[in-house]
Amino acid sequence: MSADTSFLEKYKSASARNRSLLCVGLDPNPNHLPDSLKGRPDGISRFLTDIVSATSDLVCAYKPNFAFFGALGESGFADLAGLIRNSPGDIPTILDFKAGDIGNTARRYAAMAYETLGADATTVNPLMGSDAVLPFLEYKGSCAFLLCLTSNPGSADFQRLETGDRTLYEAIAARAVEWSESGDCGLVVGATHPGELGGIRALAPGLPFLVPGVGAQGGNAEEVVRTGADADGGGLLINASRAVLYASSGSDYAEAARQQAERLRSTFEAARASTPA
Amino acid sequence: MSADTSFLEKYKSASARNRSLLCVGLDPNPNHLPDSLKGRPDGISRFLTDIVSATSDLVCAYKPNFAFFGALGESGFADLAGLIRNSPGDIPTILDFKAGDIGNTARRYAAMAYETLGADATTVNPLMGSDAVLPFLEYKGSCAFLLCLTSNPGSADFQRLETGDRTLYEAIAARAVEWSESGDCGLVVGATHPGELGGIRALAPGLPFLVPGVGAQGGNAEEVVRTGADADGGGLLINASRAVLYASSGSDYAEAARQQAERLRSTFEAARASTPA
Repeated sequence: MSADTSFLEKYKSASARNRSLLCVGLDPNPNHLPDSLKGRPDGISRFLTDIVSATSDLVCAYKPNFAFFGALGESGFADLAGLIRNSPGDIPTILDFKAGDIGNTARRYAAMAYETLGADATTVNPLMGSDAVLPFLEYKGSCAFLLCLTSNPGSADFQRLETGDRTLYEAIAARAVEWSESGDCGLVVGATHPGELGGIRALAPGLPFLVPGVGAQGGNAEEVVRTGADADGGGLLINASRAVLYASSGSDYAEAARQQAERLRSTFEAARASTPA
Repeated sequence: MSADTSFLEKYKSASARNRSLLCVGLDPNPNHLPDSLKGRPDGISRFLTDIVSATSDLVCAYKPNFAFFGALGESGFADLAGLIRNSPGDIPTILDFKAGDIGNTARRYAAMAYETLGADATTVNPLMGSDAVLPFLEYKGSCAFLLCLTSNPGSADFQRLETGDRTLYEAIAARAVEWSESGDCGLVVGATHPGELGGIRALAPGLPFLVPGVGAQGGNAEEVVRTGADADGGGLLINASRAVLYASSGSDYAEAARQQAERLRSTFEAARASTPA
């Protein structure tokens, strides 16, 4: 984490400079690498370097997904550290590891994200409650995106349960607003739930929303912008991973990724332009 | 994960052989290492090797906590891999990382745990629902311990919310029983909630319970055994981490860890002996 610029400042500045609400998720799967990089020891790092170079004027953030690095063992961990270290200093990185544990352990996850890896923000699973969340907020200038209503079908299993007069995801959104007095919080809200996004925005008007699910998962980008943006038409980081990364398996993978990113950015910007502020 | 023996078989066999319900949590914090190992590059691996050697006839499982390795970067990841690779083959290891993500990503976390690191079981955060859990169950012979009612104060924030006619943690326990038809599931239930443990056992009579919170967190071991054991007086893995690992900071740390482990094992066995089956 850079000492001098907060995640939120970095995000707002990158979003304004690049006119973009697009966050590119970095989920490197060795089986899906372009043919020219498959099986090479430096394949993952070359691939990600190329994707970042090809898209860095089109995005508001990058979101490396820990699972895809951790599954590759030590070398994957090294690739993740190198990726964050070498990514453009003026674009924030969100470490997506959905950590959630007791205070003593949460402090080590926060140290991993912010000290060891140097991310600007993280995703955090709030199921274990305040002592799982607050250690992340102690890193001033960081931001913890709490899982609220996730993009996947299983989000219905528990997140949508009624708890008294509101659902569990609404209870999480309300607590996130309280916790954000101790440090910056955001919410993870799937693009696959456009009907609920406006209600969550009403509960948490000032929080940034990380919105996965517009690419391979099929969410509707226009509706996300229309119902999810904050009063300034921002506060959104709309994530696409596979749709950008694996746009082509040929030698044109970086250019194809750029075209996908450009297309998504334009879709979001068009939706923003047509949405009354 | 060993191809030939399932986690549950390994656990039952180690528990019977060592007459033990004790799971030792491996949470290596460089600041808490014994003075003789502090600051040494091989300090963590030496420490854990010594702890495992000193306790392997007293435990039913080991539970390395990912956060404490991940916070140390690549070398921590290597230490974790070496720890699991070199730990006694007849004692199961539970990778505690509380992962929970969409199916595509959950599959990579499962690959990290079972293929890359070779753990026998994992902890899984069920907030994202079935598609976050089921990929772990596809590894036959493994076991996924789902967070149910955790040991920390923040467990009250969401896990205890009433959802219709039952609490969220009860809803999770009920789903875990359903999911266990697809592969072995367990539950994480804190020792700090002895009043609820019996009710959760009634909901999930056949599932193994991983029970943290008896050591530094202050849970009562006798009550855990009395209310949490299954019909055979087993089905419990009672975890202690800091109380065993950091029993002494002197050169007698391994012997002190052994004494603590012995003491905890005896407490659990005495409780088991005095509990009507």
